[in-house]
Amino acid sequence: MESRREQCSHSQSSMAGLHVRSLLVTGANRGIGLGLVQHFLRMPKPPQWIFAGCRDPKGQRAQELQNLASKHPNIIIIPLEVANPSSIKAAAAKVVEHLGGSGLNLLINNAGIVKLNTIDTETLEDMSEIYTTNTIGPLLMGQAFLPLLKKAAQGSPGSGLSCSKAAIINMSSIGGSIASSFGWDIMQVTSYRCSKAALNMLSKCQSLAYKEHGILCVALHPGWVQTDMGSSAGHTPPVTVDDSVQGMLKVLSSLSEKETGAFLDWEGQVIPW
Amino acid sequence: MESRREQCSHSQSSMAGLHVRSLLVTGANRGIGLGLVQHFLRMPKPPQWIFAGCRDPKGQRAQELQNLASKHPNIIIIPLEVANPSSIKAAAAKVVEHLGGSGLNLLINNAGIVKLNTIDTETLEDMSEIYTTNTIGPLLMGQAFLPLLKKAAQGSPGSGLSCSKAAIINMSSIGGSIASSFGWDIMQVTSYRCSKAALNMLSKCQSLAYKEHGILCVALHPGWVQTDMGSSAGHTPPVTVDDSVQGMLKVLSSLSEKETGAFLDWEGQVIPW
Ligand SMILES: NC(=O)c1ccc[n+]([C@@H]2O[C@H](COP(=O)([O-])OP(=O)(O)OC[C@H]3O[C@@H](n4cnc5c(N)ncnc54)[C@H](OP(=O)(O)O)[C@@H]3O)[C@@H](O)[C@H]2O)c1
Ligand SMILES: NC(=O)c1ccc[n+]([C@@H]2O[C@H](COP(=O)([O-])OP(=O)(O)OC[C@H]3O[C@@H](n4cnc5c(N)ncnc54)[C@H](OP(=O)(O)O)[C@@H]3O)[C@@H](O)[C@H]2O)c1
Repeated sequence: MESRREQCSHSQSSMAGLHVRSLLVTGANRGIGLGLVQHFLRMPKPPQWIFAGCRDPKGQRAQELQNLASKHPNIIIIPLEVANPSSIKAAAAKVVEHLGGSGLNLLINNAGIVKLNTIDTETLEDMSEIYTTNTIGPLLMGQAFLPLLKKAAQGSPGSGLSCSKAAIINMSSIGGSIASSFGWDIMQVTSYRCSKAALNMLSKCQSLAYKEHGILCVALHPGWVQTDMGSSAGHTPPVTVDDSVQGMLKVLSSLSEKETGAFLDWEGQVIPW
Repeated sequence: MESRREQCSHSQSSMAGLHVRSLLVTGANRGIGLGLVQHFLRMPKPPQWIFAGCRDPKGQRAQELQNLASKHPNIIIIPLEVANPSSIKAAAAKVVEHLGGSGLNLLINNAGIVKLNTIDTETLEDMSEIYTTNTIGPLLMGQAFLPLLKKAAQGSPGSGLSCSKAAIINMSSIGGSIASSFGWDIMQVTSYRCSKAALNMLSKCQSLAYKEHGILCVALHPGWVQTDMGSSAGHTPPVTVDDSVQGMLKVLSSLSEKETGAFLDWEGQVIPW
């Protein structure tokens, strides 16, 4: 309890600049996505709408999210399979309904998958599946939620860009840094690396296309985090979900038009492409 | 004729360091791929085997390549659809047959497509199709031809890396440079940019995985070139196929282990990721 309370006060001070009325997180039922939902809930002024995208809301893996939502009416679980365009469209329609006339401040494209292939064991099927989820999903999400993000930007005062106004956050990975080729000796995962390098390009494209609409776009590396994915190669990652999410929220609170199109880690450091 | 002769002598002097016994070029029936075949033919010591990959060897678009092959027995047209794993496997088997016990020195992944979408008009289908051709194809080609490339590397003297020994050349694009976002105002082509950023990552992965086998891997930007693709947005590109190919062959002739994993343009300049 002691450490949890400490964390909360830390969260509050470091995220003073983040005031989000509504957000959507994909893959919100476990791992970093669930951590994001929890930390937004704990803010001094929590969002009015936390849309928690989840591809199988009735499944075992959504139990913790369901429990949380039953206690917090501002969490709205939205069925959402990001590799399926019609699921995305249906989700956007549901979010519009809930928001009434309001816009969406923050879209966090967090859902992602990895397969522990070496370059020799990659297949067309794995390359396609991972690209569809990790790269095409975030593109289609951006398209589908653009009207709501625009609306949020238009309804916010001031001329600059910020996450409190309207933003797309793409959960990338340092594994997608071509320059660093981080962790190659431990995990080749070429399909994953290619999908995240492409996601970084998508973030850049979205930043260029959506700037005129008042929407900030960045790619974020959450650190090497203690989740199912982070532990999948049998190692114990150094960063807890709480620390990663707290760090990322602090970064989000600090972003302005200067950072749109950037690739940053959970501590605010720029990662080379 | 005069300018053609001038070109030949230029080619000869600048590519003095490139001695390739066998190579394969994908998408060799038109554009840059056809130009590569023509320039290899014109070398002082032309390769013994020029495998010209072509997805529709009987079609109208392969007429010029067919004419060339009918005059030059060292050109072997290989049916090859790079988006199809079984076509790739069949092509590799055919190449093995032709080579007898020899290896393959150079694999040039040149085939590529673009669709003139804006970020708003991209679809799952276009994103997938372009990624499959531009990124997954080169991965699968690398896998299928790896035994032949290894064989060429093992059969070559010396310990360093070079294109005369064994190399994979991926035809990328400055449009895939996340840092430069070159040409955004003229062509958004997000699907193409994402596929080429991912191809750059693939090249990096291939360079890391295949270095121990003696295989050099680079991503090349050919310039903005006068081909169907180069002209597709209605502009006239500044670079001729001849100049682009000549420049790239000069670059290839100069590569060593220092450059493996790099992203270079047709004039040898490093392009930022
Ligand atoms: N953990 C790390 O060390 C690390 C490092 C760098 C980057 N990242 C990135 O951070 C993000 C979150 O990772 P994580 O560690 O939290 O992973 P995780 O624990 O494996 O959770 C992944 C989440 O994504 C969801 N998801 C996967 N495919 C989906 C699809 N097609 N449609 C909708 N939801 C889908 C999962 O839903 P189900 O429960 O239904 O499967 C789950 O909620 C990913 O983009 C990952 O690449 C993680
Ligand atoms: N031209 C430029 O300015 C420029 C700039 C940067 C990068 N590039 C890159 O350079 C490469 C060559 O471009 P280009 O200008 O020569 O293009 P192009 O004139 O349009 O020719 C493309 C070639 O690729 C082949 N191809 C396409 N999809 C294929 C598939 N699935 N399987 C097998 N072959 C396939 C085409 O065959 P078909 O005839 O059967 O269609 C054709 O031979 C591409 O990778 C392109 O991205 C070009």
